[in-house]
Amino acid sequence: MHGENLREFILKANKAITSGDVNLKDLPGSCGRLDLVCRCVSSAFFLSHDLRRDTVFYSVHYGNPNPPVALKFVGSELKRVSPDERSIAIFIKKALEKEHLSVWKESTSGIYHAKKEFRDIILERKKEGKQIFYLHKNGVPIEDLINPSNCKKDIVFVLGDHIGIGEEDEKFLDEIGAERVSISPLELHANQCIVIVHNILDKIKCTYFSNSVS
Amino acid sequence: MHGENLREFILKANKAITSGDVNLKDLPGSCGRLDLVCRCVSSAFFLSHDLRRDTVFYSVHYGNPNPPVALKFVGSELKRVSPDERSIAIFIKKALEKEHLSVWKESTSGIYHAKKEFRDIILERKKEGKQIFYLHKNGVPIEDLINPSNCKKDIVFVLGDHIGIGEEDEKFLDEIGAERVSISPLELHANQCIVIVHNILDKIKCTYFSNSVS
Repeated sequence: MHGENLREFILKANKAITSGDVNLKDLPGSCGRLDLVCRCVSSAFFLSHDLRRDTVFYSVHYGNPNPPVALKFVGSELKRVSPDERSIAIFIKKALEKEHLSVWKESTSGIYHAKKEFRDIILERKKEGKQIFYLHKNGVPIEDLINPSNCKKDIVFVLGDHIGIGEEDEKFLDEIGAERVSISPLELHANQCIVIVHNILDKIKCTYFSNSVS
Repeated sequence: MHGENLREFILKANKAITSGDVNLKDLPGSCGRLDLVCRCVSSAFFLSHDLRRDTVFYSVHYGNPNPPVALKFVGSELKRVSPDERSIAIFIKKALEKEHLSVWKESTSGIYHAKKEFRDIILERKKEGKQIFYLHKNGVPIEDLINPSNCKKDIVFVLGDHIGIGEEDEKFLDEIGAERVSISPLELHANQCIVIVHNILDKIKCTYFSNSVS
């Protein structure tokens, strides 16, 4: 990661398909809002003519026919991926076609798949000592929680899709001490949240670096 | 617009296709980065379970075979559009198939097309007395330019695609007094810029309203 701190995003995709039967002509419908997952990948990694190497994105699918299936995208290893939904969906289809084990297996460069639960992925991050933030409209404004010093550590953001993560998982997040953080007075799409979180961190980091130089 | 002030975005899409020969399987390539235009529409209008009725988005296409073709999307009139690239591309294809005149004609609900230049669309907004901002990495930070009072007026943001708007059009924007405004220390995709501008305006407006109530 070139000494950079890591930004991790974990999406609960309640209806996203869990087999390789991805119909590229119908990502929103028969694929269970796979379009949203694709836009999240695009927002997580793509800069103009560059990729965010310091980012990892997890999408945990709970749709038919074989939930859960977790996907992991590692920015520092991604190759040949384009920012459009269709090309990302083709890579996701390849990963979903594989057999899923309890450990991560690589499908294509930088894209991994496993039979893992949403909570397990969060707990793994927690055990690594990382700070967990849950993006929620009624949370504390992100600017009040993240500053140039904790922005230097690895941070993890948990996101819901159009359905949300549900009461049980919200309770779980409370129990493990995840902080609820708000980035907007409006309810946004998950991919829009990722863009905004990146932007706020980019600006804090930028201030940090310019302060440390001056 | 329910008494709301308007947010307008004008994108110069240097390579975007100007006929109805849209290949839905190849938006980035043969359609001249039409995927980017579609993501801009998605970012401009879609909230979680809602649409931004206070937004207008223009995309001016300069690709083959018949440039320019301008498209206009009016949030308060949009119907049946979904946030995924493919469904937006289908609506764009319908608009591009039409004959383009010098005045706006409606293609489907809330989506208009015309034979108009990028500069003419900007000048029309300028003549309506609107403030024009040009999104540029080296501009003044947006937080220093937009505040609760000018945020109540209609504002227009001009954006470039992956190629940028070019020196000539930058000079034109300088001449008409467009202000260069920066939203990130990094070079972002146009659709990501739209998400961030919306977010900053949402937060300013939110502060404004809560101040005026207290």
